Formats: sequence, structure tokens, C-alpha cells
Amino acid sequence: MAHFDLTDATCIATIRTLAADVVGKANSGHPGAPMGMAPVAHVLATRFFNANPNNSKWFNRDRFVLSNGCALQYILLHLLGYKLSLDDLKAFRQIDSLTPGHPEANHTDGIEVTTGPLGQGFANGVGLAMAQAHLGAVYNRDKFDLINNYTYVFTGDGCLMEGVASEAASLAGHLQLGNLVVIYDDNHISIDGDTAIAFTEDVSQRFLSYGWQVIGVDDGDSDLEGIYNAIAAARKEKSKPTLIRLRTTIGYGSKLQGTHGVHGSPLKADDIQSLKSKFNFPSDQSFYVPSETYAAYRAIASRGAELEAAWTTLLGKYGEAYPKESAELTRRIAGKLPEGWEKSLPVYKPSDPAQASRKLSEIVLTAMTPKFPDLLGGSADLTGSNLTKAKGTVDFQPPSTGLGAYSGTYIRYGVREHAMGAIANGLAAYGGIIPFVGTFLNFVSYAAGAVRLSALSKHQVIWVATHDSIGLGEDGPTHQPVETVVHLRAIPNLDCWRPADGNETSASYLVAIRSRETPSVLSLSRQNLPNLEGSSIERAARGGYVLYEVEGKEDLTIVSSGSEVAIALEAASKLKQEGFKVRIVSLPCWSVFDKQDKEYKLSVLRSGAPILSLEALSTVGWQKYSHEQYGMQGWGASGPFQKVYEKFGITGTNIASVGKKVISFYQGRQVVSPLDKAL
Amino acid sequence: MAHFDLTDATCIATIRTLAADVVGKANSGHPGAPMGMAPVAHVLATRFFNANPNNSKWFNRDRFVLSNGCALQYILLHLLGYKLSLDDLKAFRQIDSLTPGHPEANHTDGIEVTTGPLGQGFANGVGLAMAQAHLGAVYNRDKFDLINNYTYVFTGDGCLMEGVASEAASLAGHLQLGNLVVIYDDNHISIDGDTAIAFTEDVSQRFLSYGWQVIGVDDGDSDLEGIYNAIAAARKEKSKPTLIRLRTTIGYGSKLQGTHGVHGSPLKADDIQSLKSKFNFPSDQSFYVPSETYAAYRAIASRGAELEAAWTTLLGKYGEAYPKESAELTRRIAGKLPEGWEKSLPVYKPSDPAQASRKLSEIVLTAMTPKFPDLLGGSADLTGSNLTKAKGTVDFQPPSTGLGAYSGTYIRYGVREHAMGAIANGLAAYGGIIPFVGTFLNFVSYAAGAVRLSALSKHQVIWVATHDSIGLGEDGPTHQPVETVVHLRAIPNLDCWRPADGNETSASYLVAIRSRETPSVLSLSRQNLPNLEGSSIERAARGGYVLYEVEGKEDLTIVSSGSEVAIALEAASKLKQEGFKVRIVSLPCWSVFDKQDKEYKLSVLRSGAPILSLEALSTVGWQKYSHEQYGMQGWGASGPFQKVYEKFGITGTNIASVGKKVISFYQGRQVVSPLDKAL
Ligand SMILES: [Ca+2]
Ligand SMILES: [Ca+2]
Repeated sequence: MAHFDLTDATCIATIRTLAADVVGKANSGHPGAPMGMAPVAHVLATRFFNANPNNSKWFNRDRFVLSNGCALQYILLHLLGYKLSLDDLKAFRQIDSLTPGHPEANHTDGIEVTTGPLGQGFANGVGLAMAQAHLGAVYNRDKFDLINNYTYVFTGDGCLMEGVASEAASLAGHLQLGNLVVIYDDNHISIDGDTAIAFTEDVSQRFLSYGWQVIGVDDGDSDLEGIYNAIAAARKEKSKPTLIRLRTTIGYGSKLQGTHGVHGSPLKADDIQSLKSKFNFPSDQSFYVPSETYAAYRAIASRGAELEAAWTTLLGKYGEAYPKESAELTRRIAGKLPEGWEKSLPVYKPSDPAQASRKLSEIVLTAMTPKFPDLLGGSADLTGSNLTKAKGTVDFQPPSTGLGAYSGTYIRYGVREHAMGAIANGLAAYGGIIPFVGTFLNFVSYAAGAVRLSALSKHQVIWVATHDSIGLGEDGPTHQPVETVVHLRAIPNLDCWRPADGNETSASYLVAIRSRETPSVLSLSRQNLPNLEGSSIERAARGGYVLYEVEGKEDLTIVSSGSEVAIALEAASKLKQEGFKVRIVSLPCWSVFDKQDKEYKLSVLRSGAPILSLEALSTVGWQKYSHEQYGMQGWGASGPFQKVYEKFGITGTNIASVGKKVISFYQGRQVVSPLDKAL
Repeated sequence: MAHFDLTDATCIATIRTLAADVVGKANSGHPGAPMGMAPVAHVLATRFFNANPNNSKWFNRDRFVLSNGCALQYILLHLLGYKLSLDDLKAFRQIDSLTPGHPEANHTDGIEVTTGPLGQGFANGVGLAMAQAHLGAVYNRDKFDLINNYTYVFTGDGCLMEGVASEAASLAGHLQLGNLVVIYDDNHISIDGDTAIAFTEDVSQRFLSYGWQVIGVDDGDSDLEGIYNAIAAARKEKSKPTLIRLRTTIGYGSKLQGTHGVHGSPLKADDIQSLKSKFNFPSDQSFYVPSETYAAYRAIASRGAELEAAWTTLLGKYGEAYPKESAELTRRIAGKLPEGWEKSLPVYKPSDPAQASRKLSEIVLTAMTPKFPDLLGGSADLTGSNLTKAKGTVDFQPPSTGLGAYSGTYIRYGVREHAMGAIANGLAAYGGIIPFVGTFLNFVSYAAGAVRLSALSKHQVIWVATHDSIGLGEDGPTHQPVETVVHLRAIPNLDCWRPADGNETSASYLVAIRSRETPSVLSLSRQNLPNLEGSSIERAARGGYVLYEVEGKEDLTIVSSGSEVAIALEAASKLKQEGFKVRIVSLPCWSVFDKQDKEYKLSVLRSGAPILSLEALSTVGWQKYSHEQYGMQGWGASGPFQKVYEKFGITGTNIASVGKKVISFYQGRQVVSPLDKAL
């Protein structure tokens, strides 16, 4: 039933000329892709896309992801009437504008996920589609198809070369995500030139191998009906994600169309003029939007408002028929946590048995899960090691597999850490879901590209990162993180927790779950940790506190985290026998501690005596909190974990001896707190 | 012509029972895969594999990579007579043994690359195969097929789920690597259980889409002839890599065979006994190797020694026919650098024009390349931005593409950063090659899993990591690294350089190329940097030095790196006008500076006045070298780079004002060098 007319041609020309103008004014950006993708963007927006530009947060809106993130999305948002003016388009790539170089979630109205770093958006899209499948399965009822949106992803060659997209595509096929439509801008060009130089695989066959539906459209430049039919067929297929392979001409309309000359550089002034003439646009005007273009797009906006109104009515009726489900769904949509959820956090006494913090994490998850449907967790094929699967949870699986249901809350990610991280960003971006993911801490590094985008985009994702040091023992240095935690600690808006015992593990979950715009990494031990005298959820929730205080002036403070806090205590006890007074500070989370008031911080890490840090990781960064550092100077070693700790001198006995060295070095010196600073 | 007899069965049973014993004694490890892969390992080792166990470094040996790294490789090395005793097998996963939890290159005789972290070995194998293709094309001549080895990779489901393997597989298909044979242990099991839960793609079809030959063997447990024929067919195919999909039973022979119960845990004692009985092995003996097994494997070793001898003779004759090529090849095999290569490093005067350090890097590469055939470089689709392609270099491409030749030295990696890093490890591991790779610094994080293995395995890989800060400007925070450099600085045995000008860029190449067992990341600017008075290759090569000295006692030292050194100098000059004496220390490489003698270090970062660090990156870690830190507290911003620097106060004017604050804060305090420490 597709019908296209001159207005459509005008709209498409508007997108193309705006793309040239936006990038031209900024003198920076990628004009080629938006010019090539203008037709499909227009067909999708006008004929299929369900959203309300007046309320970009309408829950059942279709999600749009521009994986090859560029100006195209800003242009569409402007035309559709989101909170993005023509002036905002003119401020593309300027300081403090709403139109930064690549679209950023939680920065610009209507942007679902942050894209630009290639492959991420594709995997985010898989997460968005999984979120719909899950919430639909949990809340939809007969006659109440409340959550049934589609996720549309635009992607290019670059994204499809990235491993993170491959991982996500394989999982999406396994999960039979019929609500996911990916449109692949097959323009045969990447930054280095023709894709013939490096990307000659058969993309269609590859996606067929993943279990996707693949549809080709040979003339993506002008075959609007073909594009329409492809999207319609994609929507019709309910048990497979769809890849639409759309042959387009990059920079269509430019004198350099079809070459990488239009990929990452603005068009020359005369080329922009000629482009406009070609489309019968005034060649002397910039940022020209014909009134019929605005009219066409405002009509879509009206349709969107009507859709939302109808949906809101349906939600109201749902509330009458299913009050409990409705209340829960409404709470989740509003981004509120379940009432009193914190009460389920376990509290420990020193007499409670020693347990690994990964096990303590499992206890938290098992305690929280029954009252906390928002938690949607999983592991990258390390479930039994990460202990991420709470008892009684059902796998998130297509029903046809017989292995679970879409309403299930446990995701089998496979050995796909990077996609897992990026999918979790999509799950968080969808709303109503707090995703947690599991792997060894060492392999969070595989997902670094996604982790930094969680933090930048303010997606609440919780990493259950176990086996967090040489304490993993036998697997050896290939699996023993040394540098990982300091990397995570250096990422803005990310809380990296290394809890020392049961109460601290509960505290890390408390803060991680309350931090609705901050991702967290919980760095957890494989080995057992004793429950410590002096720890409490409240104290640990400040990020750092005095775990063991002395009477009078101390000789030394040892500041430590995670599995090494108990070793620090052992050292303190040995030193006490020799007459030394040693305080112990537990610092499970630097970034949370940094946010405490200065007085508190200076009381924890006070002047007067030297402070020695202890961690079975790289010492890089500990200089901020201590005068002296003890940790790993190189790689770990393979062996039973106690032997490995001994090899590297991380034992009560050796740290006591190191402590004496430090005490004697600072004898007679004036010792100022490392936090007593000018800046 | 395959013929298999009872001896083969005995050998295979030996591998299987040894696997059970090795893992059983360690009480840790993965018995299932070696037990399942024993038949193919045996067929490959005895019928095809060309190597000399007496000289594991014979240059034309076949390369073997156990991507799903486990005890299997140790067992084979022992049986073949490499320097690995039965006692070494008994010390599996024990401290300081030759048999750590996962095989480590440059640690155990005969191990080519470090595996265990999934997907890496697969991509390393692609690199090893590319190295052969390249060196063969460069040095082989009619009748002198000197370099013609195969690379064999064993891989499992876990590896094939990883994105890094997907990226590498796609590139290997494009590159038509007929010398690469991958044997996929298709046992339907991963750690979480049946692959049906997460990995249901059609792997064969996927590899066909990449342009591979795919051969299936349905009974990998006992069809030795089928295995033989598959490997023979793989070797015969000269223009495609081959995937042999081998259906095996994980833990074959165990009571738990075919389940994930044998994946990552030792077999129970009674299961080991029953296994041995099943194979007619003495059930009461551990680590039992029948003499016919040793005899069979020692025969292979003799064959290997003969192969090497014949090859050495051929190399001798080659030397007569092609003295120049032979001398060069022999030098490269010996791991020596070209005589006088350092002389090509450019030297700069302050009057030379300002240039971006990425451009300075290009100048170095262009100067070095003609006399330095060992350099095999490339970029992940950012050639024009990374400036990694020296003038006149030819693309490394299959001749049939018409785009280059295997003798070409410039690799088009596509947008595949993680595979690029892992492939570079394979190139370095092959020998005779110094690989360098290019991408934005921000996307080195995509390859973190490979980078840490470069460092752990002592592979000399050089990263040309451009656009290294907010100085990249318009692309915005999605592309502006903040946390990346401190992550790299925390990796042991990795030198991260951030040169400030031309001489420092030359210095970073000088040290990076001389460091034959250390990878380096050169963090380079997009924006122009002036050539600084006081810089020199020699001084910068110490990792840190006083760039600008004052007369008498200073009021402040500013320590900085890269693009911010010139800003520090500007601040110093402003402060000088106000009567303050400010020294400037340039610290382009922490790890190299750390290795200098203490006296030198204390002379550079001396006591007596406060030291302020300045870098347009996270300040994490700078506390080691300074009392006060100025840098990025959060994410960057999209805009022209000068505006971005202004926004974050990284300008001469603001740093001068910050400097005054620091000076006044420390007035009257006793200031001790941050390097004057007890530990
Ligand atoms: Ca493209
Ligand atoms: Ca497997």
C-alpha cells in the first residue's frame, strides 16, 4: 500500500541538503551517510515509526538507533519536532550544544543511546529489542498488547566489521528477536576507501547463519516502494530479527558521491550549491526547510500524540483489569525502585562464616530477586563462577527452545562480553530494567568500549566482576587482573566497588542500585573473606571508613580494599604485638568516597602518621590516598591462591614488616594527609 | 594414504589419560577439551606437523595455537620431546612451574602465543598465517620455498562466540590465507552447559560467508581417517583458510562425557580409574606413558630434526644465489635490527614548524621504512587520520584482488581493533616482523584484551594511537579518551608514550623499537604541537627530564606530557612575568622514567617546591609524580579543540592561575619530592 509522491521527494532532499549544511557549517562531520540514508530514514519516519515527539519518553515508542552515529539523527529529530531547533542544528559540534559530534543519550531529547563508537549502537539495539520482548512477555495480556514497539537500527559497514556487533547479532538470532529491524547502509565505502580493501565477506549469508531474515533492496537511493516493502516484511516476521541490506550511494547528490571523499569531510561550498540546484532547492540558502517538509513531519508528530493517547487509555483499562501488574509496570516506567527493597540486603556479624564476595553477591541477588522484578541479569558463560543466577530464576529464552521464556530474568549471553556490556546499555536505556551482567573482572576489559559508554550515557548497569585478583589462583596471569580496577576507577561516573566482606558487599549493591544514572562494577573475590569487626552497610556506603581505630595517635594507617583488608588487619594485629598502633581504613569505592565532605575524608585519612595502601593489584592511583603503596609490580602467577599471595608478599607477616619499614622512614618527619591539598 | 593402527589408539589414550591425570593432580583445570581433542591432536602431530622439538625456534616450523588454551598443549609438548618433563606436567598450575594454568608464550618451550582468554589464539593464528604469507612472498624464490609453513589453530565454541575471533575470521577470509587451518572442537558444550542455550548459529555457514573452506568431520572421537582427510584437504586449498568442524565428545571416556561436568573441573578419582580401564591402561598408575607412545612421538621429533637440517641446507644455497635477501632474512630471523636504523630518526629545532604528533609519527615511519623491512603496519580503517601509511608502501593484499601483494607492508585491518591487536601479537610471535597498528587512542580500549597479552607475552607491538585527548575536538566525548592512558600505564611491561614534540616523537620510536620484548603505545595528538626548546631524543628517551630549568630555587615545577607540555611552558612564562620561577618537566613515558636510577629521578622531580601535574586526561596516577594535579575531572566535550581546552581550563592563563594557588598553598611548608619514599 505504499504511495510516494513529490512531497516525499522534497522531504528526502531536505534531509540531504540539511546534512550538507549542518556538516558544512560545523566544518566537521560525516555528510555522506545521512545523504545516502535520507530515503530510508524518510520512509521509516513517515510510514512506520511510532513515537511522540512531544514526549520522547513515551514508554511504548519505537526505538531508533543510529549505530553509525552522525548528523542524520539530529535532522530527523528537528523535523519531527523534538526539542531541537534549527539553531541547535547550526551549533552542530560546538561547545555545550545539544548537537555534539555523535548523538549522546541523556543529553539530547529523543536520543535513545549514545552512538558513534562503531558497533555499539547495533548491540544497544539488540538490548532494546530484548527489553521489549521481556517486558511484553511479563506485562502484556490478552487485549492488552501494551508493550509491543519495534527497534530500528541503522548501521553501516564499520559497525558490521566490529566484533561487538557480530556477538550481538549471533545472540539476537538465537533469541529470535522479531521486533528488531536493522537497516544496513551497504554503500561499499568506509573511511579508508572501498570496502573491497578489507570487508569482502558475504554479509547477507553471515546474518542468515545467525538465524536472521535478510532482505535486499538494490536501489536504496530512490526505490521508496522497495524500502517500504522491506520494512513491512521485516515487521511481519515475528520470530527472527531482520537485516535489510540497502544498497545506497554515499553522499548521494554530491559531485563526490559514491566515494570516501564524502565520508568524513564536509562538502565543498560549490558542491553544496550544486547539490541544492540538483534538488531544485534555492542554492543560495542554507538550512532551508520547505514548508511542505515541516508539514509532512508535523503530521507524523500528531499521529504520534494520538498513538500515545490511545496507549494511555489502554494502560488505564489495564489498571482496572490487572491492578497489581499495572502498579508494578507504572512504577517501573516511572523509574522508581520497589518499596523497601533495601530491607532484603543481608547484614553480617563477625561470627558469620567466611565466604567469597562472589558468593555474598549471590546471596544478595537471591534475597533481592523475589521483590525486584526490575533486575534482569546474566553472565557471559560463567554462571557457576560468577554466581549470578539467583535460585528459582527462569532463563530469558524464546519459548520455542523449551529452555525458558521471554518473561525469564536470566540471560545466557554466551562468551560475548563486549556485546553483553552494550546490550546491557540497551536494556537500561529502554527503561524499567536494571541490568546486571557477569564475567571475570579480567574480561570486563573485553567490554571496555561498552563500559565507558554506560558511564557517559548514564546507563545504570551493574557488573558482577568476580575472580578479581591473583586470588583467582590456578588460572594464572592470563586471567588475573592487575590493571583493570585502576582503569575502571579512572572512568568518570562509574563506581568501582571492591567490598571486603558481607556488609560491604551489601553496601555496594545498596549504592549501585540507588545510583540510577551511574553504572557500577562490583569487583568480587573468588576466595573466602572473613566478616570483619567494624564493617557495616552504612559505613561502607560512604565509600571509605575507619574499620579499625586505635587509641591515641597511630604509628601507621593501612588503607586497603576487598580481599586485602583482612590481610591488613592481620598485619595490624602482628604489629600491635610489637607495640605499634595501626589503624585500618577500608576504601571499597574511591569515587563514592571522593564525594564525601572534606572533613570526613580528612578524618578517615588523617595527617600525623604515614598511610600505606595495600591491594593485590597495580598500585597506580593509590598515591592519592596514601604515602606508600604495596601491591603488584607486575603480572600474577598460576598456583593455589595462598601460594600466589605468598609469592608476592601479600601476607600479614610481610605487610607487618613493610609497615615497620614505613613507620621508621617517616619517624621524625612531618606527615600531612595526602588529601590535604591545594586543588 | 592414511593408515592408523593400534599404536595410534594407544597414543590417543595416552593423551586422554594424561589429561585426566594432569588436571586431577592439580585439582584444577579443564580435562574435557583435551580428552575430546586427543584424536585430532594426535593425527595432526604425527601425520602433518612439521617442527623440530629440539629447536622450538626453527623459523619455518608449522605454528600450533591452542586457542582454547589448556593442558593438551603441555601434554603434546612433553610427548614430542620439547623441554617439558613429566615432572613439569605434574606441576601443572603450581607456582613458578613451566605449566601455568594457560599456555604462555616466552615462558614455556614450544608455546607460540599465550592463550586462554578466549578468541585471542584464533586471531593470533590469523596473524601467524599473515606473517608466513608476507615473509614467503618477500623472500621465497623459484626453487627456494624457504618460508612455507602452515598455522594450525584448535578452537572451541567459546572462542568462536568472541567478537575478536569474528573480526579475525572475516579478515582471514578476505586475505585468502590458504596456510591457515582451524580445527573447531564442535562439542556442543560450553561452561554454562549445552551450546543450545546461547550459541545456535550455523557456524559452517558463517565461515562460508567469510570466504573460508569449511569441512565437517562427524565423528571426531574415532574417525582418524576422516580427520586425516580433512586436514589434507585443508592443506591442499591454497586460496582460502579452512575451518574443520569436528564433532567431538567432550571428556571422551569419562563417565560424564558429553556434559559440561567435564569442562572446567577435574574428573573424580573413580572416574579416572574407570577411564584408564576403558583404554586398557593400568588403572592404578598415574602419568603413565606407554613406551610405544614415546617411540611414536620421538619418531616425529627425528623427522622434525631432518626437516630443519634440509631447510638449513636450502637456506645456505639461497645465500649463494641471493646474498642480499639471505642476509636480510637471516638478520630478521636472528631478531636483529637493521644496522644504523636510528640514524633515520628525524631531529628537530625549536624553529621547525609546529606539527601534530600523529604527523611527526608519519614522518618517522616514512623516514624509517625504506631501510626497515621488518615494519609491517596498518590501521583499523583510519589510515588518513592515524597517518600510518608511509609513502610508497604497498598494501598487504592477496594478488587476486589487484589491490596489492602479500609482499606489501601495509595492512588494511578494517574496523576491527581487537582483532588487529591480537593479529599483531601473532605477527610479532612469528618472528622477523615488528608490527605497528593504528587507531584512535580511544579505541585501543576495544583491543584491551589483546594489548594486555602483548605485554604479558612480551610481543613487541607498537600502537600508533592518535587523537589522544580532548584535542580531537569535534567528534566529542564518545571519541575523547580520558581514562585510556592511565589504563595503559598500569599494564606491566607496556610503555605508553605521550610525546610533546618532534624530538620526543622520535625518542618514543627509538625506545619502542629497541624494546624487543615490550609493546608500546604511542599516544599522539591530532592538533599541532610546537617544537620545544630543550627537548632532545636522548633526554626524552629517559622517559622524563627537565625541559626548562630555572636559576636557583624554583617556586613550582609543572610536570606534564604530550600536547600539554607547551601549555605548561606558556603558564611558566606567564608566571615568570609575575616573578615566579617555574620549572617544566616533560614526562612522556612513566614506565621508562621509573627505570632510571633514583638519583636522576630525584633530580628531575626534586624536593623543595611543589610539583603540579598537567594533562588533558584523568589525573589518576599522577599523584605518584606530583603534589597537585590538574586534568580532566569528567568527560570531554564536542567542539573545536581550542574551545574545548578553554572549557576545561587547560590554557596557559588558567594553569598560571592554578600554579599560583599551588605556590601559595605550599608556602612555608616543607616540600618533599613525591619520589622520596620508603618503598
Ligand atoms: Ca559504509
Ligand atoms: Ca565447547
